[in-house]
Amino acid sequence: MSFKIGLLGHGVVGRGVDEIVTTRVEGVEVTRILELPDRCGVDPRMTSSFDDLVTDDSIDAIVECMGGIEPAHTYIAAALNAGKHVVTSNKAVVAAHFSEFVELARKAGVGLHIEATCGGGIPWIASIAKARRIDEICSISGIMNGTTNYLVDTMAKTGEDFTDVLVRAQKLGYAERDPSADIDGIDVANKTAIACGVAFGVYVSPGALPVTGIRTLTRADMELFASLGRVVKLLGRGVVENGAFCASVEPVAVDAASLEAHVPANFNLVTLVGTTVGELKFYGQGAGSLPTGNAMVQDILDAASNVLPAYDLGASLRHDQDLLRGDYIFRTSVPIQSATEVVPGAYAVSDLTPQDARLLYERVLTSDPTAFMAAYPTQ
Amino acid sequence: MSFKIGLLGHGVVGRGVDEIVTTRVEGVEVTRILELPDRCGVDPRMTSSFDDLVTDDSIDAIVECMGGIEPAHTYIAAALNAGKHVVTSNKAVVAAHFSEFVELARKAGVGLHIEATCGGGIPWIASIAKARRIDEICSISGIMNGTTNYLVDTMAKTGEDFTDVLVRAQKLGYAERDPSADIDGIDVANKTAIACGVAFGVYVSPGALPVTGIRTLTRADMELFASLGRVVKLLGRGVVENGAFCASVEPVAVDAASLEAHVPANFNLVTLVGTTVGELKFYGQGAGSLPTGNAMVQDILDAASNVLPAYDLGASLRHDQDLLRGDYIFRTSVPIQSATEVVPGAYAVSDLTPQDARLLYERVLTSDPTAFMAAYPTQ
Repeated sequence: MSFKIGLLGHGVVGRGVDEIVTTRVEGVEVTRILELPDRCGVDPRMTSSFDDLVTDDSIDAIVECMGGIEPAHTYIAAALNAGKHVVTSNKAVVAAHFSEFVELARKAGVGLHIEATCGGGIPWIASIAKARRIDEICSISGIMNGTTNYLVDTMAKTGEDFTDVLVRAQKLGYAERDPSADIDGIDVANKTAIACGVAFGVYVSPGALPVTGIRTLTRADMELFASLGRVVKLLGRGVVENGAFCASVEPVAVDAASLEAHVPANFNLVTLVGTTVGELKFYGQGAGSLPTGNAMVQDILDAASNVLPAYDLGASLRHDQDLLRGDYIFRTSVPIQSATEVVPGAYAVSDLTPQDARLLYERVLTSDPTAFMAAYPTQ
Repeated sequence: MSFKIGLLGHGVVGRGVDEIVTTRVEGVEVTRILELPDRCGVDPRMTSSFDDLVTDDSIDAIVECMGGIEPAHTYIAAALNAGKHVVTSNKAVVAAHFSEFVELARKAGVGLHIEATCGGGIPWIASIAKARRIDEICSISGIMNGTTNYLVDTMAKTGEDFTDVLVRAQKLGYAERDPSADIDGIDVANKTAIACGVAFGVYVSPGALPVTGIRTLTRADMELFASLGRVVKLLGRGVVENGAFCASVEPVAVDAASLEAHVPANFNLVTLVGTTVGELKFYGQGAGSLPTGNAMVQDILDAASNVLPAYDLGASLRHDQDLLRGDYIFRTSVPIQSATEVVPGAYAVSDLTPQDARLLYERVLTSDPTAFMAAYPTQ
């Protein structure tokens, strides 16, 4: 008897899941697919009514790859309430409703499977959860967004400016027509919040994080940081220490000799540090039909084996921005008082929390909307 | 009721397992420890008789961290025959007897857990096995030996010569007093054989691989490759294509901009390429008491949950050295006929299989025992 799936959405990722399940996996079957009425076509599995899926007792798991908050939130909650396992690639809805979904899954005794929300085909969420079987996780961090890494890496390699590379990335399908979620760090904030939840056992609202993107990054900025032996990468970071935690999303000037500095194209590289295992890094395609589809099918196979991820967001941790306190560099035409001018138009500001840095940056942006900011960690 | 372990060996890794199990894991207990008679000391768990462990019905799993082929081989076989799960960090004995152990574990319905044989705390074997649930694995490769990476990385950073760095590595405990297994590639051959077994489902004898180490690497060699935009790293590699496979262990001149080129100190970086997941890389401490202990305790937790790794070495694959055919550079005072002299004393030889390269290198070594060889892949 096969394990039956109801698929929500048949876009890039949904088609990847459908293809992998159909061609590569025995004992699993996509029996229903929810799509918009005008997209249902001739595939007899398709319907535009969610009720057809959630009331179908033969369906074991709902696999959500629609994206967006609603109706994804309502559908996932309904599926869990109906006693169906849920597999999702939707980082926005999981980041926003992680606690609710964990609680509903626990009550119903079903699995909430979220590997595909972070890092595409990289076994990142499962690796954090596995490390936690033994270790406390001290930190998670990394390059979690392929689009912005493609932009920065291409700028570094070709010397082109941000807008030119962005336009090409949009043509190649590496960037959305509206690239805001990627270049403003919103996508990374969602992934950081989810990874912190799994790693530290605490619910982190992405809206509560200090989040800065790379929208104003210029070729001249790249050259400035290169002259300092650094490369700018957009990083999500989370740290736990002495019963407190802190997380941020911002451009970080990493050591030019680091692995992070050499992550090419649209790849991701994510790091965890655990008590006994030490530093582990995971690299791979962070997006795309087949890598993300692969992560969802891995989750589907776990669901089919009744492997239930046991997320618990009940840890009692203070929020302490001091844990990520450090130095920053601001590039702006508006002088920053009491800061050291590194080169003309670039100011080093010492010893800021990510929240302070974000507030200072917002203040600078009101006078100079082209200003750029990056954390500049001590090495 | 706790899961009871008999530990074979209480050296660096054994003490790590004991420490992690005792301090960090509930429901698991190290009840007996096999040690040499003069090392048994006052710990009441210790005995110098293996029979005390294998005939003890209360022991659920034998955890072997003795190293060496015998008596490890006999003890592992006896433990599997006695219906006990086996967890081992011993790459030499698994590489030599992988097929026998898989068969014994299958017959007894117990688990053979080998994560700690490759890559220390990196979840490498488990990740290959997990990828295989969906994908065919096209290749595995990487920096699998921390000692040689420490040597090469330090030479690159300090400009010191091989012997000076080796002496320091021995003082720091990064290299053994007899460093042959590391610097001659034997350790990497064992790990490559095991990883190929898990990835491709075929038994690979480490003795059948073309294996070249870095014993003759000099500062001048590092400089030569740097001038060509390359960095030498000792890599294990395995490839499958069209029903054939090929594997090798040899110094490889990797792109100076690659992640491999930037792996620092005694870290490992291993890569798999799968049909749908694409390229995945895993980075971490490849050795050491706690990282390797962590890997063994992860295996112990799987054993305690009755998770049985399902290795199958029965794939029918031809051996085809052409799959890794490529270019090589030889540095030697003895001219190589029909080769291009890249710089004085360094010869480029095109289009060799790893086996041909190894044979040519052995011939060169008879006249010039200081000669060095590295694969020089097209980029």
